[in-house]
Amino acid sequence: MAIVLYQDQFIDRDQAKVDIEDRGYQFGDGIYEALMVYSGRIFLLEPHMKRLERSARELDLALPYSTDHIIENIKKLIELNHLDDGVVYFQITRGAAARQHFFPENTPAVITGTVAGKIRDLSKRPQGIKAILADDIRWLRCDIKTLNLLGNVLAKQKAHASGAGEAILHREAIVTEGSSSNVFIVKDGTLVTHPADHYILNGITRLFVFDLAKKMNIPLAQREFTVDELLDADEVFITSTSNEVNPVLQIDDRLINGGEPGRIEKKLIDAYDAEVERIRAVPFV
Amino acid sequence: MAIVLYQDQFIDRDQAKVDIEDRGYQFGDGIYEALMVYSGRIFLLEPHMKRLERSARELDLALPYSTDHIIENIKKLIELNHLDDGVVYFQITRGAAARQHFFPENTPAVITGTVAGKIRDLSKRPQGIKAILADDIRWLRCDIKTLNLLGNVLAKQKAHASGAGEAILHREAIVTEGSSSNVFIVKDGTLVTHPADHYILNGITRLFVFDLAKKMNIPLAQREFTVDELLDADEVFITSTSNEVNPVLQIDDRLINGGEPGRIEKKLIDAYDAEVERIRAVPFV
Repeated sequence: MAIVLYQDQFIDRDQAKVDIEDRGYQFGDGIYEALMVYSGRIFLLEPHMKRLERSARELDLALPYSTDHIIENIKKLIELNHLDDGVVYFQITRGAAARQHFFPENTPAVITGTVAGKIRDLSKRPQGIKAILADDIRWLRCDIKTLNLLGNVLAKQKAHASGAGEAILHREAIVTEGSSSNVFIVKDGTLVTHPADHYILNGITRLFVFDLAKKMNIPLAQREFTVDELLDADEVFITSTSNEVNPVLQIDDRLINGGEPGRIEKKLIDAYDAEVERIRAVPFV
Repeated sequence: MAIVLYQDQFIDRDQAKVDIEDRGYQFGDGIYEALMVYSGRIFLLEPHMKRLERSARELDLALPYSTDHIIENIKKLIELNHLDDGVVYFQITRGAAARQHFFPENTPAVITGTVAGKIRDLSKRPQGIKAILADDIRWLRCDIKTLNLLGNVLAKQKAHASGAGEAILHREAIVTEGSSSNVFIVKDGTLVTHPADHYILNGITRLFVFDLAKKMNIPLAQREFTVDELLDADEVFITSTSNEVNPVLQIDDRLINGGEPGRIEKKLIDAYDAEVERIRAVPFV
């Protein structure tokens, strides 16, 4: 039986229930993070927790515990589930209160967390995916990692229904991000991705790729780019916590780089893998 | 102890829990309706249920029961709670499944419903409210009554924090609607309200006011109007299921109609009240 985190407790999955008037359930009034775990070690923990704190601040949501205490509990959750490689998902809502739109007073926030195993098969990488284009109809605070994900869900479902792995979103001509990823293009050796503003989530893997690119002297531009630039790019890839760095080999009917992962993508994936192997060997603290 | 609806069951409020991986909790992937009840009778039931069916269709969400069966259960919920005047709230989510953005297969939708008493004190009406202006940052499918309500919540909270009852939203110069209401202005004897498109929820009370206006020969225009027109209007009012027809007497620092309910507002409120009194006397079916 899987163990889940509920507030400060570790309970059997089947017992993990929330109140029907939890504001997460009635308004999507909450935030979340997903963390990759490699050999039981949490990858890029600190930037994830910094982002969580920012999301909470932007929504004026008081975290139920200190960040340190949440980290402690997440580590315990990993341990209790004997998670080796996989994902930890946790969310924090504004808690349960009689339904009214404005914030309730003195209602404690509710944290819940789950783990899911995910075997990382290096032999199958870089695999690559197909993507579709879809209108970005989401709200104007995509920079906050909230539970209001219907716009993302509908785009992902559209991709899924057409056999694609991701929907690349655009507002008019400007590409913003994927339905659950950031989007990069490579043109003439330079990485290009949308700037971190209210239109995209500032992905932790996005920022990690910035670091990798810097180390490898790959030039990077944070600027808006168009759907035409996307389709004409030398390479296109997405980044996300669970997808890591994933080449996009086809967008709608258009092949990218002849349908093969590109040179810079391979370099980034190798560098990412090396970093994963490095942290697998880091002693537990 | 209040009784709540959970799927096909009527259970004690304290026992009403949902799974932590319910998609309503993790994605806001669900829809809802709120119904007014007067003397135990549901007001405007049919249009609410038609809108529920439309919301479900737009999200490709299969209702867990037929509309007739849901109505039957809502009526029973009212009865079991001995609700006289008040609100029935119910929501339907896409159900519980391992977290992934795209739709799960063969996962039953989950319906939950609650009631809240609300005494309708005619002596205090028309009361009127203050409102603030706020940017409309919501997604582009506001026509679907979903649980993705953070944009609405943040606007309402901003109003609440400044002692106002509603936030009137605008995209650039165009007024769309309130954070939980539709907005009407009166100018030279004509009602004006935003057309029913993807930018607003097509409120049931909005449509009911159309009917009342028609009966009273008050001209009505569904067209976009600006913030300037709003502030220069002869009268401004909001409509919603639980707010009915409510005059807006002040917007930010600007008084509307000298801070008093206007002539047309009073006529609409009287007509609304008459309709409420009429349905109080309708025999139960």
